[in-house]
Amino acid sequence: MSPVEFWFDFSSGYAFFAAQRIDAIAADLGRTVLWRPYMLGTAYKVTGARGLSSTPLKRDYARRDWARIARHQGLTFQLPADHPHVALAATRAFYWVEPELAAAFAMRVFTLYFNDSLDTASPEAVSRLAPDFGLKPGALLAGIADPALKEKVRRIGEDAVARGVFGSPFFIVDEEPFWGWDRVEMMAEWVRTGGW
Amino acid sequence: MSPVEFWFDFSSGYAFFAAQRIDAIAADLGRTVLWRPYMLGTAYKVTGARGLSSTPLKRDYARRDWARIARHQGLTFQLPADHPHVALAATRAFYWVEPELAAAFAMRVFTLYFNDSLDTASPEAVSRLAPDFGLKPGALLAGIADPALKEKVRRIGEDAVARGVFGSPFFIVDEEPFWGWDRVEMMAEWVRTGGW
Repeated sequence: MSPVEFWFDFSSGYAFFAAQRIDAIAADLGRTVLWRPYMLGTAYKVTGARGLSSTPLKRDYARRDWARIARHQGLTFQLPADHPHVALAATRAFYWVEPELAAAFAMRVFTLYFNDSLDTASPEAVSRLAPDFGLKPGALLAGIADPALKEKVRRIGEDAVARGVFGSPFFIVDEEPFWGWDRVEMMAEWVRTGGW
Repeated sequence: MSPVEFWFDFSSGYAFFAAQRIDAIAADLGRTVLWRPYMLGTAYKVTGARGLSSTPLKRDYARRDWARIARHQGLTFQLPADHPHVALAATRAFYWVEPELAAAFAMRVFTLYFNDSLDTASPEAVSRLAPDFGLKPGALLAGIADPALKEKVRRIGEDAVARGVFGSPFFIVDEEPFWGWDRVEMMAEWVRTGGW
């Protein structure tokens, strides 16, 4: 049984909402979740697209929509004043932390970014999460500065884009791609029924 | 009770799927549908976005997704070999035909484009639909060549974009915007509950 691959950028509001539900939804399906942060900019280089927050009209719509989804789901959601951050430090830290602690670490990053403006671009800010996971901030800082780790993270993103991943959230399960927070139900139906 | 405004481009696969359901969904809500074709290019001028079919990766995903949705809904869906057409002639014809026949005319255009490669960019091709609606092809051809009609259609699109419409399908009801085929259920919930 293949896992549900959950591709996302830590600065994606829609990924934040998907992250709240994906473990439970996958568990219902008898699947695990493979959390896979990557830099959306890697996809933008191929698609020529821009982030929602850099796009007139879509920017305003997305902010209204995120607030609406948060109210609907009873979630606290407070966009950082300088959203979006380029979450490279947080993404590298995720891959340094994984596998055991990775999902919990990702949820912590999401919550702190979208509730308390964690600077996901700052190695120092991200390193301060380490003690909550029994890790040392200095070790995390050194780990995410390691060229081999940086290269690994870059390659993971490029390999994903080469497989057709271009959005956030973006799911792949049983080789089938699903783009968007609003497609989680269709993905679940696909897995339950074996596809159509 | 405000109608459900249904904004779309005749070349939008997701709008085709929304068109199949929107009248029934609105009727359940006790609302009418105001069908509103416009040229997505009008929005792209403001957003800087490009169509799905002009965007690497998204293009392939969209084609797979449309076929998947069509199978799921039991609909025939055959993308024209030269998709997307610039559906300006069909859009002008819609506004020449409206109001009484407009929704039926729009459904005919959608069906013929996505099943039989109707050239929605060609005034002549579009005019051949006229007899099915008790109209004369020559009258339709003259009507959509009228500068006043052209100006009206242009203004409708520009006014929509000025109100924040940028996608297809895009719904506005009770002043609330909803973007995307996969948001029809949320829109219905919003209307039923009065919003949240």
